[in-house]
Amino acid sequence: MATDASEAERSEEAPDAYRRLLEEYRRVANLKAASGVLSWDQQVMMPEAGTPARSQQLSTLSGLSHELLTDDAVAEALDELESAELTPELSASVREIRRKHDRAAAVPRSLIEEMSTASSEALPAWEAAKADDDFESFVPHLETHVELSREYAEQIDPDRDPYAVLFEEFEPCLPLERAESILATLKETLVPMIEEIRASEADLATDAFTSLGEYPADTQEELCRDVLTALGYPWERGRLDTAPHPFSSGTTFDARVTTRFDESDPLGSLLSTVHEFGHATYTLGLPDDHYATPLGEDRDLSVHESQSRLWENHVGRSQAFWESFLPTVAEQFPQASDVTPREAYEAANQVYENNLIRVEADELTYHLHVVIRYEIERDLIRGDLDVAEVPDVWNDKYEQYLGIRPETDTEGCLQDIHWAHGNFGYFPTYSLGSAMAAQLYAAAEADIDGLESSVAAGEFDALHGWLTENVHRHGARYETDDLVEHATGSPFTADAFVDYVTEKYGALYDLDTV
Amino acid sequence: MATDASEAERSEEAPDAYRRLLEEYRRVANLKAASGVLSWDQQVMMPEAGTPARSQQLSTLSGLSHELLTDDAVAEALDELESAELTPELSASVREIRRKHDRAAAVPRSLIEEMSTASSEALPAWEAAKADDDFESFVPHLETHVELSREYAEQIDPDRDPYAVLFEEFEPCLPLERAESILATLKETLVPMIEEIRASEADLATDAFTSLGEYPADTQEELCRDVLTALGYPWERGRLDTAPHPFSSGTTFDARVTTRFDESDPLGSLLSTVHEFGHATYTLGLPDDHYATPLGEDRDLSVHESQSRLWENHVGRSQAFWESFLPTVAEQFPQASDVTPREAYEAANQVYENNLIRVEADELTYHLHVVIRYEIERDLIRGDLDVAEVPDVWNDKYEQYLGIRPETDTEGCLQDIHWAHGNFGYFPTYSLGSAMAAQLYAAAEADIDGLESSVAAGEFDALHGWLTENVHRHGARYETDDLVEHATGSPFTADAFVDYVTEKYGALYDLDTV
Repeated sequence: MATDASEAERSEEAPDAYRRLLEEYRRVANLKAASGVLSWDQQVMMPEAGTPARSQQLSTLSGLSHELLTDDAVAEALDELESAELTPELSASVREIRRKHDRAAAVPRSLIEEMSTASSEALPAWEAAKADDDFESFVPHLETHVELSREYAEQIDPDRDPYAVLFEEFEPCLPLERAESILATLKETLVPMIEEIRASEADLATDAFTSLGEYPADTQEELCRDVLTALGYPWERGRLDTAPHPFSSGTTFDARVTTRFDESDPLGSLLSTVHEFGHATYTLGLPDDHYATPLGEDRDLSVHESQSRLWENHVGRSQAFWESFLPTVAEQFPQASDVTPREAYEAANQVYENNLIRVEADELTYHLHVVIRYEIERDLIRGDLDVAEVPDVWNDKYEQYLGIRPETDTEGCLQDIHWAHGNFGYFPTYSLGSAMAAQLYAAAEADIDGLESSVAAGEFDALHGWLTENVHRHGARYETDDLVEHATGSPFTADAFVDYVTEKYGALYDLDTV
Repeated sequence: MATDASEAERSEEAPDAYRRLLEEYRRVANLKAASGVLSWDQQVMMPEAGTPARSQQLSTLSGLSHELLTDDAVAEALDELESAELTPELSASVREIRRKHDRAAAVPRSLIEEMSTASSEALPAWEAAKADDDFESFVPHLETHVELSREYAEQIDPDRDPYAVLFEEFEPCLPLERAESILATLKETLVPMIEEIRASEADLATDAFTSLGEYPADTQEELCRDVLTALGYPWERGRLDTAPHPFSSGTTFDARVTTRFDESDPLGSLLSTVHEFGHATYTLGLPDDHYATPLGEDRDLSVHESQSRLWENHVGRSQAFWESFLPTVAEQFPQASDVTPREAYEAANQVYENNLIRVEADELTYHLHVVIRYEIERDLIRGDLDVAEVPDVWNDKYEQYLGIRPETDTEGCLQDIHWAHGNFGYFPTYSLGSAMAAQLYAAAEADIDGLESSVAAGEFDALHGWLTENVHRHGARYETDDLVEHATGSPFTADAFVDYVTEKYGALYDLDTV
């Protein structure tokens, strides 16, 4: 179908207004891609004093993007196309541009530029505050972000919950209520399960890797390159670097990943690299010939996160994966030569009792980290919480939900970059992505004969093919629910995730619930 | 004076039209800076398959820059300001923006975008052609560039020599006739001098470094970091990377340099790094508070090149420099422990008999490399030469002017990146820069007590201070001739360069002319 769309676009069937619309939209998309390069550079390469100029550059690009997207020419082309007969693909493309146009048109360019500048200034302040455990110094930046975000939401719709409006920035195709109900299901399932696990006497090989000495960062980097190669990362379209907060970014022609290293444990950087690989492989699977158009763009953050979670959790944390990949680990780190696939599997799936860091969390407690952030940012945006109160509220919630209390803000409310970017409403998409990953992987398992054996043999082509066919190649052709239903035959729910964790962790920890 | 300008701009004395003008111009300048980051990334970091997307991104940015610069708001503000009373600084700023506006307004945006796309596509083609010694495969790209450049010149002024029009792109403040007369002086001086040198029986320590075995690239990179640190490169505002064709780029907040390595000889990468340091230190010396305005922008390419040449030739190729820096070389490469400053000086200033590569040329033959490129690109642009004829003409001229003939196009007409970028009229600025460097350094020597002793002691603060005070801090405040005259007390000529090489090479090669 993607091929049909591509042909339709190029043929004389595509109305002239559509060609005009795409011409404008391609500039918007290229500005966004250029901003992505500038932002990658800022996080990975830029010298520390570069911020003032980079801030102005990014602000200029986002201001121009806003101007182009809200241009009369775009509005006129959209109006014309909405009363024309269009193929489903063109119609989907118009729908996506309409949504972005309307949203942008509601907000003045000056506010967009102010938000961009605030973000560029907050990032180094956050880095310094995190390094020095100095939340106080970050307060004015976070206050500015909250204020600007509330103003942004009010411009778009003064009558709606501002947090719901901001959530749409990251997940425009799924109402906040749906997200909240999925989060609630996860919480209801996981709280008793984690309690049971903590009471369990199962003896997992939790220190399979950590009992074996140091893992130098440069060798870990080699190992991360190995895992990317093993999974099928096309190096001619990507690169691996280190960054304080791992991320992936880019286009279908150039999708880069980053990681970071803990010298006491190679699992963190490995699984984080597999996670970012999942993001990159989605980006790489978008159709080249629709670059810089909605049919070549990702279906927003929950779907993006479903791809990273699928590779991280359903592949990278499977025993089958360790059967194929452990020999490579032992090549780079001979001290790990005697680790068995079962031990690696247990180490990679242990449910932590004392972990404070979201990105180092296991598959189960992870969602409580997310719920805490969601509750705090929702209250900040709704005006129910002051920025100055964040550390106390954060620490109280960690004690309440996870039974642990951060001793510093560095390992507490300063750990994540999202709020420094001014992103509120982003966190829920992580849990949505996990739930969606479980549903997609269950469907892939049903469709692909011997998927587990393939993974155990280090063969990932069939899985790549399934994901490209059912998810990647569609770009933003379908809305989230439609995409999931097309791919799996069912609407998007948390059911598959609940089944998956119940079975997996029931067996691992010998729980009664199985 | 820069401080005065800054205050005037911010005070209520600056007319409202000036503030409006700067607001628009800052966006243009930030787009240019963003393009600079994208281009740096393309040359240093981007995976090979990234070109199609990067090409569209750069084309979008240059198209938008062109639109903003030619906007009616800019034209109206310029008109208003040109009949107002302005301080000299504001008046200079208006003059610079007027020049760019008029030039941009003469050319349709579609042509600008076409040139940008052509450049992005030609770069990887040039790299491949150079790697494979396959000029043929590069021909269509070069033909496109010539054709687009001729069209560009014609749009600006159909009645003038198109090469003179293109030259102004890189050196807008010095007529081509002045440049040609300086090139002629260099040629007249250097041809007999090089002949005399080749007849000389002086026995220089030409193999002082090359007789000592291999110099691994990673240690050379350390040494290049050492030399940057020794010269005073502020690492918090820059970085060093490798690139196939060394360059520097960035802003006053973030000015990066690149280099490359020849494992048989550390001098090439060292002097090339010192050269790029000179460029970077000019960029870094531009006033922070005028970032993205003409008073914070460089005075174009000849002046830029004067700064790189001054550091490369007058510092890096001086015996005094080697007195301070040789111990660092010996630390990284113990095999060079016995090289004396005099030997290093002789090795760094040998006049090559057989060198085909411009960027590896000595100070004298260098300008014949430039003259050859200038003559060829001038004839291409004037329609007097076909692209297909370039290799033969190139090789004939090398034989005629330098007595050597390239055996491959890789070490012939494919060696430089400039034409792959579509830059015609750039090469002469290298020789202009060398001549200007000599004039500036002579003035600095006259002004700074004991400059040579400072260099021999590894102290460069006085020289940095002199250059910042007399060149860098002015941005584009003065036109080229005015800037040189302000700094040196005399108009810009080749006299100082002729004196410098006559004395230096006369002594080195024991020539009669001294």
